[in-house]
Amino acid sequence: MALYVKYIENLINEFKKLPGIGPKSAKRLVYFLLKRPPRDIERFAQSLLEMSTKVMFCKNCYNISEDDICAICSDSGRDKTKICIVQEISDVAIIESTGEFKGLYHVLGNLLSPIDNIGPDEVRIPQLIARIKDTGVQEVIVALNPTVEGESTSNYIRRMLKPLGVITTRLASGLPVGGNIEYADEVTLGRALSGRKEF
Amino acid sequence: MALYVKYIENLINEFKKLPGIGPKSAKRLVYFLLKRPPRDIERFAQSLLEMSTKVMFCKNCYNISEDDICAICSDSGRDKTKICIVQEISDVAIIESTGEFKGLYHVLGNLLSPIDNIGPDEVRIPQLIARIKDTGVQEVIVALNPTVEGESTSNYIRRMLKPLGVITTRLASGLPVGGNIEYADEVTLGRALSGRKEF
Repeated sequence: MALYVKYIENLINEFKKLPGIGPKSAKRLVYFLLKRPPRDIERFAQSLLEMSTKVMFCKNCYNISEDDICAICSDSGRDKTKICIVQEISDVAIIESTGEFKGLYHVLGNLLSPIDNIGPDEVRIPQLIARIKDTGVQEVIVALNPTVEGESTSNYIRRMLKPLGVITTRLASGLPVGGNIEYADEVTLGRALSGRKEF
Repeated sequence: MALYVKYIENLINEFKKLPGIGPKSAKRLVYFLLKRPPRDIERFAQSLLEMSTKVMFCKNCYNISEDDICAICSDSGRDKTKICIVQEISDVAIIESTGEFKGLYHVLGNLLSPIDNIGPDEVRIPQLIARIKDTGVQEVIVALNPTVEGESTSNYIRRMLKPLGVITTRLASGLPVGGNIEYADEVTLGRALSGRKEF
């Protein structure tokens, strides 16, 4: 005998597809929603559909946008000589939250990964090169995670941009502010040492 | 300047309303969905709407159902002389999974809680009494959590059912199977002692 009705099982399956949500959490979420008024569920479904149909990706930098060109790219107050390269759309919001960067972005969407068959075309390198050739970009700041894929993608980008005459920089490695030398790993500490600055 | 487009913020807010999902998880889920193909998002939204519109509650026991009367209540093989009282719809599935109970259910939906203004009407006690009067129920098994509200609701139900001449039982308290006496709290150990059985 079926313990759940079909529609409940379907919804549990949908929640299970989300990252970090296992079978138990998915059930808990569905039982929670079962107790909500129908108009709350409708609003949730509506928000999903609107995100899917109305959110666009900027034709310039691939950030999320409500138009062909995103709010950052179309902002005349931004410094168009600098492009910050990030992996994900979510990284744009993180860099923006520092308030330290006033240039434009380029969202790769992926990192190079030969074993997963992800090559330069999948990480929007040709589009980046075209942008740099078309506009007066002077500096490209590579802000990828300091992982193996992040490092090799960073290095690939640096090699590809060298002939274009732009400066390529990357985020400083070092101790986190408020961090403790005792708990830093050797590589981080080594980078902090080699990147030491006069003060 | 808006960091997020409106539709993304709306969806993040919807996810934040779910239990156990904070602002960071909500963002992560939305960014995950942004990368999914539109038909996946549509299926998710569709599942939400179907759950909301097509799932009914059994007029008899208040369990979830695809019809007026749920699959358990309409199953002629179930023992209609026994009713198991549970707090939530999800508890029905848990009890069913033991395979030990072949009777019917009564889902309260809430526990008595005077400070939250939840009285007998909100926990479907009148409906329970009507069911017992109308049918040949002989035993009511109260399967509520052994918490303060659970205990007081259990005791209230026992008092209300006494004049009706049905046997009222509740789940045994004691050591969990595979548990350790050393780690049991005093109340549980006391209950395990007073409920001891010959073997």
